[in-house]
Amino acid sequence: MAGPGVFIAFEGGEGAGKSTQVARLETWLAGRGVRVRTTREPGATGLGGTLRSIVLDPATTGLSARAEALLYAADRAQHVHEVVRPALVDGQVVVTDRYVDSSLAYQGAGRAFDLAEIRALSRWATEGLLPDLTVLLDLPPELGLARARGRATADRLEAESVQFHERVRGTFQALAAAEPDRYLVLDATGAPDALAAAVADRVAALPGVLS
Amino acid sequence: MAGPGVFIAFEGGEGAGKSTQVARLETWLAGRGVRVRTTREPGATGLGGTLRSIVLDPATTGLSARAEALLYAADRAQHVHEVVRPALVDGQVVVTDRYVDSSLAYQGAGRAFDLAEIRALSRWATEGLLPDLTVLLDLPPELGLARARGRATADRLEAESVQFHERVRGTFQALAAAEPDRYLVLDATGAPDALAAAVADRVAALPGVLS
Repeated sequence: MAGPGVFIAFEGGEGAGKSTQVARLETWLAGRGVRVRTTREPGATGLGGTLRSIVLDPATTGLSARAEALLYAADRAQHVHEVVRPALVDGQVVVTDRYVDSSLAYQGAGRAFDLAEIRALSRWATEGLLPDLTVLLDLPPELGLARARGRATADRLEAESVQFHERVRGTFQALAAAEPDRYLVLDATGAPDALAAAVADRVAALPGVLS
Repeated sequence: MAGPGVFIAFEGGEGAGKSTQVARLETWLAGRGVRVRTTREPGATGLGGTLRSIVLDPATTGLSARAEALLYAADRAQHVHEVVRPALVDGQVVVTDRYVDSSLAYQGAGRAFDLAEIRALSRWATEGLLPDLTVLLDLPPELGLARARGRATADRLEAESVQFHERVRGTFQALAAAEPDRYLVLDATGAPDALAAAVADRVAALPGVLS
């Protein structure tokens, strides 16, 4: 629908290894002559960088849950408009670190909203663009948060409770279970090499990637 | 619903005299011992100030129409959460310079969207909060734009074509015509004193303002 390209999203909690696996997949695809564009949410565009700094700044207090959800949706709208769709139309493989499921998991399940409301917002923002494949790197929150904290100071999302992150994980798992053909769920406690190989196998089988 | 306060919005095109009439109404109400809070969209909150600078900056190029609409909705969500509802709960009369109708007129009619989409976005952002009274200061666009241009350099919205502003005016008029009990439509070519008197008469009749 969006063009001859292929759209792949990585999802999962903090510290699940998404950025590592995005980079591994990029290297693997590029090595096979595939034109690949890696990107992320939030913050991939100029607008998104500004919004990311607003939403993730620990100093941001008093931001209403609805305003926050709308800022993420604005980031996503600009990301799809400026980065994702043009690359898909150009026939590239687009690999994004987080997409719609992160909003559903963090804002929908974690906060006060119905999943259907957040989904409607994302659908409007993206004009209904969904990934051809979503890779869920599944990890117990305690492990992921420890990894993330070892890496840097906790940002505002990471500072939320473990219970919050348990709900986030449950939502990611439920979304994957509802559409098994469009998801690859991996145990992110596995070795990075083994995870990268599993991702590559699945991506290689997607129509339009290696053909 | 939102508390014992009364919520009044001023709407209209560029240069219609909204800020003048908001200030006149504030003075009139305060002189009668009414606690009044004046505000505006976009940009009444800290978040809103940042978003306003993004959206109205003539240097902002490539902003997608959906991202722009979502930023206005985020501004509105934070405005209602942080300013409007607390003041209404506190029993104040809240007077805002622009609200939902401006989004409907500028983004809905002026841009590529269905009015129903923008309305749904605003309804979600505000949890359905509508003004008890909306004052529409109606003016031919050529007059309003000339006034606005005499005041300062044109911002990005003002620089749009007169045809665009004609569609904006038509949408404002249609919204008022659909709910005559909730609107006061005034010919903004009238003298400021006469307009202020007409507004005061109508506001005085609203339950909860002077009683």
